[in-house]
Amino acid sequence: MALAELIEQTRTALAANPGAGAATFRTTSRLVGVTEVANTARGHTFTADEPPSLGGSDAAANPVEYVLGALGSCQAITFRVWSEALGIPFDEVEVRVEGDLDVRGFFGVDDTVPAGCGEIRVRARLRGSASPERYAELHAAVEEHCPVQDMLTGVTIKSELELR
Amino acid sequence: MALAELIEQTRTALAANPGAGAATFRTTSRLVGVTEVANTARGHTFTADEPPSLGGSDAAANPVEYVLGALGSCQAITFRVWSEALGIPFDEVEVRVEGDLDVRGFFGVDDTVPAGCGEIRVRARLRGSASPERYAELHAAVEEHCPVQDMLTGVTIKSELELR
Repeated sequence: MALAELIEQTRTALAANPGAGAATFRTTSRLVGVTEVANTARGHTFTADEPPSLGGSDAAANPVEYVLGALGSCQAITFRVWSEALGIPFDEVEVRVEGDLDVRGFFGVDDTVPAGCGEIRVRARLRGSASPERYAELHAAVEEHCPVQDMLTGVTIKSELELR
Repeated sequence: MALAELIEQTRTALAANPGAGAATFRTTSRLVGVTEVANTARGHTFTADEPPSLGGSDAAANPVEYVLGALGSCQAITFRVWSEALGIPFDEVEVRVEGDLDVRGFFGVDDTVPAGCGEIRVRARLRGSASPERYAELHAAVEEHCPVQDMLTGVTIKSELELR
């Protein structure tokens, strides 16, 4: 099925049965080295690690890089889906994401310094033949409907510690 | 160098030279299939995709799963580092993360529904021989210093669209 048709059918089905939109995503992250972590999500796996400056072996991207890449990926996918939904085609999209982090927060050297990135900069580079006005419309739809961007503007996190 | 020693040297160096804590992380996310995205972060690469229900080929975890796994990974690594910093050893840690998402937000079926996960549940499963009080202290340090957890409670995102 073409993507535009799949989107239209999904929207119609969700409008008729709003409860069908609910999904729960689950991951498991297991520390398997000094800082190396083995992750699973459904049938997929991925590794996270830290560079030697943070005690790791740099076996993979680190968690902050996964967040930035997840934001870029989510924007790229949201460009695709909303391009189809709005009928605004493009040829290529690449999303570059940067985040500044001061590791004094992580190490507790200065507790006024946030542990994470205080700001994230996102640059979506789009190539295509529609008008700048149409692409501005598409970009606004991406900003509004990108799930990871929404999560980074503040989500409620409920944490528990289970001793085994 | 042992991790505890590396942490102590890093903290001393950062206290003496606060500007040395600044780091910028960068990723590039390029749409290479219907919803498949090729990500790079320094020398590392990873793929994101969506399942067929969202038009993809399920080649890898999706962006929301990467965010949840990044949070679990970041907590696991923060357990390691703060375990060393506080002298509270453990044998194993595994972090399970769950997020509920209603895809009506993503598809714009109901604009009162957030695009992302409204709530994330985190369960850290820890095995070790220190006291529950010590592990509660460690858990509190993790909650306070985990970079990805901090980012998920709200970060400023500045977005630009570049037409090529």
